[in-house]
Amino acid sequence: MALKLFGLAMSTNTTRAMICLHEKEVDFEFVPVNVFSGEHKQTPFLSKNPFGLIPVLEDGDLTLFESRAITTYVAEKFKETGPDLIRHNDTKEAALVKVWTEVESQNYDPAVSPIIYEYFVAPFQGKEPNQSVIDTNIEKLKNVLDVYEAKLSSTKYLAGDFYSLADLSHVSETHYFMQTPCASLINDRPHVKAWWEDISSRPAFNKVVEGMTFGQK
Amino acid sequence: MALKLFGLAMSTNTTRAMICLHEKEVDFEFVPVNVFSGEHKQTPFLSKNPFGLIPVLEDGDLTLFESRAITTYVAEKFKETGPDLIRHNDTKEAALVKVWTEVESQNYDPAVSPIIYEYFVAPFQGKEPNQSVIDTNIEKLKNVLDVYEAKLSSTKYLAGDFYSLADLSHVSETHYFMQTPCASLINDRPHVKAWWEDISSRPAFNKVVEGMTFGQK
Repeated sequence: MALKLFGLAMSTNTTRAMICLHEKEVDFEFVPVNVFSGEHKQTPFLSKNPFGLIPVLEDGDLTLFESRAITTYVAEKFKETGPDLIRHNDTKEAALVKVWTEVESQNYDPAVSPIIYEYFVAPFQGKEPNQSVIDTNIEKLKNVLDVYEAKLSSTKYLAGDFYSLADLSHVSETHYFMQTPCASLINDRPHVKAWWEDISSRPAFNKVVEGMTFGQK
Repeated sequence: MALKLFGLAMSTNTTRAMICLHEKEVDFEFVPVNVFSGEHKQTPFLSKNPFGLIPVLEDGDLTLFESRAITTYVAEKFKETGPDLIRHNDTKEAALVKVWTEVESQNYDPAVSPIIYEYFVAPFQGKEPNQSVIDTNIEKLKNVLDVYEAKLSSTKYLAGDFYSLADLSHVSETHYFMQTPCASLINDRPHVKAWWEDISSRPAFNKVVEGMTFGQK
């Protein structure tokens, strides 16, 4: 039975999971959740994820939520197909994948997401972007990207000279970030820019990018 | 050669890693980092973690940072000793451990940490706690704990009827949270309260709690 992914095709967390499923060449059914009508905050969706958040992955009688837990599960279950996103045959490389996947979660996302929110979600809600929030997070993001620039000058990808879950985890949110006036933070750092061009040109991302239409008229 | 953990004995992120090392009965050397003098923001510490954050784990020539990456690494490397924190022999249980470990990282910590910050760090810096920040995060935390209460009424621990990395990841920050005026959020929810009393009474936590003195005169 094919896996089922419940989510929204334009959502960064949903596409994080979708990119991983595509990388691992997994047959899955995408089930759209109407977030705009609040479907995720009502039964029956709450029986899948009591926090009322997308995405949710169903694999037989197993129901999983939290996009980063889903990607790790998929990368481990299908470790023999597609690129080895978790470096399961090398303990040290596998540990570094964990480190840089956590860096995305704890350092990159907390700076990038508020910027995306102000430029995409606030206008959608009829509000002006809050420049103070943007400025605070630009400063945080500069510090993170300075570390990335140094790291990516010594290895091609974040965890080493191999594409991994750590890189994959950045793609969805960076896609929207690159449409904001802050894109120069990436473009002005040559190694970060080259890394972004590399990871955003992979076929697995090309399969989801058409659906990432948030903010388009 | 024994592992080396660099950090601060009163820090929630350092003790998250320490509790895991104690649970797995791992021989390690604790190397204090003087965060108050800014040692973590200078060389040579920056060569261990370029983000200038504690803790850092050294295992031979492997250097790891991000506390949740460290705990996962330790739980996997020492899976045969102590409690099985990752349920490595059961794919479904292992997946649920991942889910609820991410819930701590993405839902619980973002609500609890600002409350701890306002009650512990702000006074340390000579500032009044910001009641607006506290109130906002109390509301977020209530929603998270309502889900925990329902989950813990059907299973003894978060990922199932077994203690795992998901529970362990909550212990350090909840220890400080229980010293704030908001502790009733836990105490008023009987299943959450029983769970907290259980996970905070484990010997591995008792080995680190004496060092968790932040805010004490």
